Amino acid sequence: MRLDFSVAVHSLLYLEQKQPRLVASRELATTLTTNPVMIRNILSVLHKAHYIRGVVGKNGGYQLDRLLTDINVGELYDLTIPPTLSYARFITGDLEASGDGSDISRNIQATLTDLFTLADQQYRDFYHQFTLADLKQDLKQHGYFVQLAHEKN
Amino acid sequence: MRLDFSVAVHSLLYLEQKQPRLVASRELATTLTTNPVMIRNILSVLHKAHYIRGVVGKNGGYQLDRLLTDINVGELYDLTIPPTLSYARFITGDLEASGDGSDISRNIQATLTDLFTLADQQYRDFYHQFTLADLKQDLKQHGYFVQLAHEKN
Repeated sequence: MRLDFSVAVHSLLYLEQKQPRLVASRELATTLTTNPVMIRNILSVLHKAHYIRGVVGKNGGYQLDRLLTDINVGELYDLTIPPTLSYARFITGDLEASGDGSDISRNIQATLTDLFTLADQQYRDFYHQFTLADLKQDLKQHGYFVQLAHEKN
Repeated sequence: MRLDFSVAVHSLLYLEQKQPRLVASRELATTLTTNPVMIRNILSVLHKAHYIRGVVGKNGGYQLDRLLTDINVGELYDLTIPPTLSYARFITGDLEASGDGSDISRNIQATLTDLFTLADQQYRDFYHQFTLADLKQDLKQHGYFVQLAHEKN
């Protein structure tokens, strides 16, 4: 799952570097040493969300459709890694429990769901503070991002 | 993985409710409708970290060894779900890359590792704001935790 986000970031930065040239999905697959099907799926998501534009045909390919400063890292994270809708499989307890200790069993799912949901929101808020231009800057000058994050938090 | 944390929370709250009675691991397994082996593994971790004390023998079992107000939710999270040490499997790129676009491929692992590491720290910081007493309060009065989290953030 998290790989989808990394692939999206890498692809967008690569398209930016190559613009205005059109980049084919197979070139991205080779560059990222990633499964071409996965690349095509992620490009399709990015295309639908207007991060990139595509030209079909023999010499077709993709181009970035936004400035890196206009690509929010948190929005890209939310797009490629949607929030968990149900934490049921991570939580014990039984809504129908009866008998000894049943008040805990009946209620712990609601309590832990709130805990996980709020923690996840805070996690995503962290990503929303940055744009792809910040990550590009860190590629050129490693340590930039850590410094920026400390200034913001 | 996250299930380990939920099982630990549920077990500790249950032991607190039953104290000073000793609770056998099979009773916890039944109450949590969870695999007894998993319960024993998690109890062993909690025992080593002095969250609970154990009495061996036929009528043996476990007791809570701390007050709920002294059990930090973040410490329990860190204990049961250790931080990811390497994000390599979530990141594309190639430290040895050469040729076209290779500056991105060579550097993106370091950049995204910093991004993920800082986001994870922020995520864990969220949990560290609370104790098990806060979660117990929410079991009795759902909505308490959301309110508390909003006050703190």
